[in-house]
Amino acid sequence: MQNFVFENPTRIIFGQGMIARIGNEVKRFGTRVLLVYGQGSIKRTGIYDQVLASLKEPNLTVVEFPGVRSNPTLSHALKGIDLARSEKIEVVLAVGGGSVMDTAKTIAAGARMDPGDNLWEFFTYKKKIRGALPVLTVVTVSASASEMNSAAVITREEGAQKFTIISPFIQPRTSVLDPTVLYSLSPDYSAYSAVDIIAHLLEGYFNNNESESLLQDRFVEGLMKTVMESAEIVRKDPRHYNARANMMWSATLAFNGLTTAGMGFVSFPAHMMEHSLSALYDIAHGAGLSITLPGWMSFAAPGNPSKFARLGRIIFDIRETDDRKAATEGIRRLKGWFSSIGSPVSLKEAGIAEGDIGRIAENASGTAGVWGMKSYTREIISDILHLCKG
Amino acid sequence: MQNFVFENPTRIIFGQGMIARIGNEVKRFGTRVLLVYGQGSIKRTGIYDQVLASLKEPNLTVVEFPGVRSNPTLSHALKGIDLARSEKIEVVLAVGGGSVMDTAKTIAAGARMDPGDNLWEFFTYKKKIRGALPVLTVVTVSASASEMNSAAVITREEGAQKFTIISPFIQPRTSVLDPTVLYSLSPDYSAYSAVDIIAHLLEGYFNNNESESLLQDRFVEGLMKTVMESAEIVRKDPRHYNARANMMWSATLAFNGLTTAGMGFVSFPAHMMEHSLSALYDIAHGAGLSITLPGWMSFAAPGNPSKFARLGRIIFDIRETDDRKAATEGIRRLKGWFSSIGSPVSLKEAGIAEGDIGRIAENASGTAGVWGMKSYTREIISDILHLCKG
Repeated sequence: MQNFVFENPTRIIFGQGMIARIGNEVKRFGTRVLLVYGQGSIKRTGIYDQVLASLKEPNLTVVEFPGVRSNPTLSHALKGIDLARSEKIEVVLAVGGGSVMDTAKTIAAGARMDPGDNLWEFFTYKKKIRGALPVLTVVTVSASASEMNSAAVITREEGAQKFTIISPFIQPRTSVLDPTVLYSLSPDYSAYSAVDIIAHLLEGYFNNNESESLLQDRFVEGLMKTVMESAEIVRKDPRHYNARANMMWSATLAFNGLTTAGMGFVSFPAHMMEHSLSALYDIAHGAGLSITLPGWMSFAAPGNPSKFARLGRIIFDIRETDDRKAATEGIRRLKGWFSSIGSPVSLKEAGIAEGDIGRIAENASGTAGVWGMKSYTREIISDILHLCKG
Repeated sequence: MQNFVFENPTRIIFGQGMIARIGNEVKRFGTRVLLVYGQGSIKRTGIYDQVLASLKEPNLTVVEFPGVRSNPTLSHALKGIDLARSEKIEVVLAVGGGSVMDTAKTIAAGARMDPGDNLWEFFTYKKKIRGALPVLTVVTVSASASEMNSAAVITREEGAQKFTIISPFIQPRTSVLDPTVLYSLSPDYSAYSAVDIIAHLLEGYFNNNESESLLQDRFVEGLMKTVMESAEIVRKDPRHYNARANMMWSATLAFNGLTTAGMGFVSFPAHMMEHSLSALYDIAHGAGLSITLPGWMSFAAPGNPSKFARLGRIIFDIRETDDRKAATEGIRRLKGWFSSIGSPVSLKEAGIAEGDIGRIAENASGTAGVWGMKSYTREIISDILHLCKG
């Protein structure tokens, strides 16, 4: 076990009917609320009405900032910051999935910047966030765990750079998770969510500098089994409460710091390469991960066959005793499982030409330093992407 | 999954050498510190010197309140409250195990009582805690998870009542967990700690009102395997860092709300009966639990054979396909394991006469209401205690 600091103060309010509590939570932090949401699906599903009803409190003023898209952009967040400042916003409430939550966090930090600060310098780690408006969330897509962590990912259109900020100031104070909001999530996005959760788990599982990690490994394996079972149930029965609930709580726990506490530095190569895919092609994040993760695993397994074999044996009940064979079979089975739930597992399936690999590798290697993975050169990334091609 | 609120804001600072950070943490909350500790073992082990060195900060005034015993008493806590008030204490720092932390929490709540309040009414849930001094901890015995939860257990000598308070106000702000402090823990107390952790896990596992709980079950099973492996290693090699570290972090996670979130109401019958044992006989809490837990399990297994069988199959690799037989065998194996690490598994082994069962059942049934377990009458408890006798 490596030394660590674990602190995760977000209040999670979980369960059917809990959206009605968000107004009371918001009131604890201020009266002028910026309501951040996406393309309006929350109006069709009725979540918008539930949130507005809860915000109908004396003294609460709600200013709306809709229009967040998946792979949210810096330029859109900057507009939100201007609005937050001109409207003297005191609290930011995100109602949506990872893109909406990350935009809300970015606005919250940006609204408290000093006059001379450049927002993008927070993302390139040239400047440190020194404050933010309080952020609260109502989750409508479960995958990012943004509702219970201190990170936000934003794409700068110029140069197609998809970068991350991390700061305790942007960690949500309260997040409401009502599994019934997932009933209307499409089969595709339900699948991408499962992939994203599994990628969060497995990057921590394989990419850390801790030699012995049985406790954390067991957490990851337990979460992964639960996510896979739940995803299979949801595919047949989208309104299965317990499956949606297990998926929702697993998503949060998979990336809130629990599974990586004590593991030292954790790197995210499959995420890094995926960020280049979604920055360049605007593919869904989970769909990109089901392409880059198995490819990266095939690349890395020969360096750590026993750990990859362990996963295959525990998750897919593989009986093969040779570690290298068990590892390979485990990766094949995982890829097959991603396919079976409807997520693409090759660049080809996502309509990305083999000839583009150079351009993707160029983009990804340009971000490797910021990710703390300088060893991932253009050549290495290109080799891995060739394992993802089809 | 049942609806729940999960909020656990304690900052955990974990690892070798981390006690040096406690002074900085204390400073965040005030300048006049009450240092609560036990019978002086921290002076022999050098932990006291490490803490004092870290508290040697300009403006910090340290007032010592030693003398906490295991099964800590109300009368001792009341003395601490008087001292905290007369010394105008602003922060309470516990350096010890569950007894010390629970005394510190009780002092912190008591120091902020209104003049007309009677401290014991907090424990009988007649009055609600409305504030407390900030509490911080340096853990020296890992089992209670008091370092990351909002509970404290105190014994009132009059009537031998061992009761619990629960309040977010007494939840530690920061806890420092350095696994090397456990190197000097005796084999007996290392064993009792393992038993206590397993009891926390299994009471949640078996005693909740949730019908489907695969995620939480997997967390429990992963933690239990880790605790058992670590306890076995520590028995042979008390200075094994990773085993001590796994035990220490598992203890915290086993009772910080994680494994029971979503499980609805959880009851603690083995703990309830043990509290009567340790209130009446001053037996170590873990030693009492290795007596009451298997007895309670034998009593309860016929009502839920598949769950008890699941535990036996997963933890002890029992291949028996008949649930009732697998359940019975699992309990037998758990009892054998408690024995193997040196914890008593019968009233007889603890020197408690069969003739005392009536008196213990009388004490326990008198507390059943406060525990939310009114169905545990004197007769039922007596029946269970007969399963614990030898």
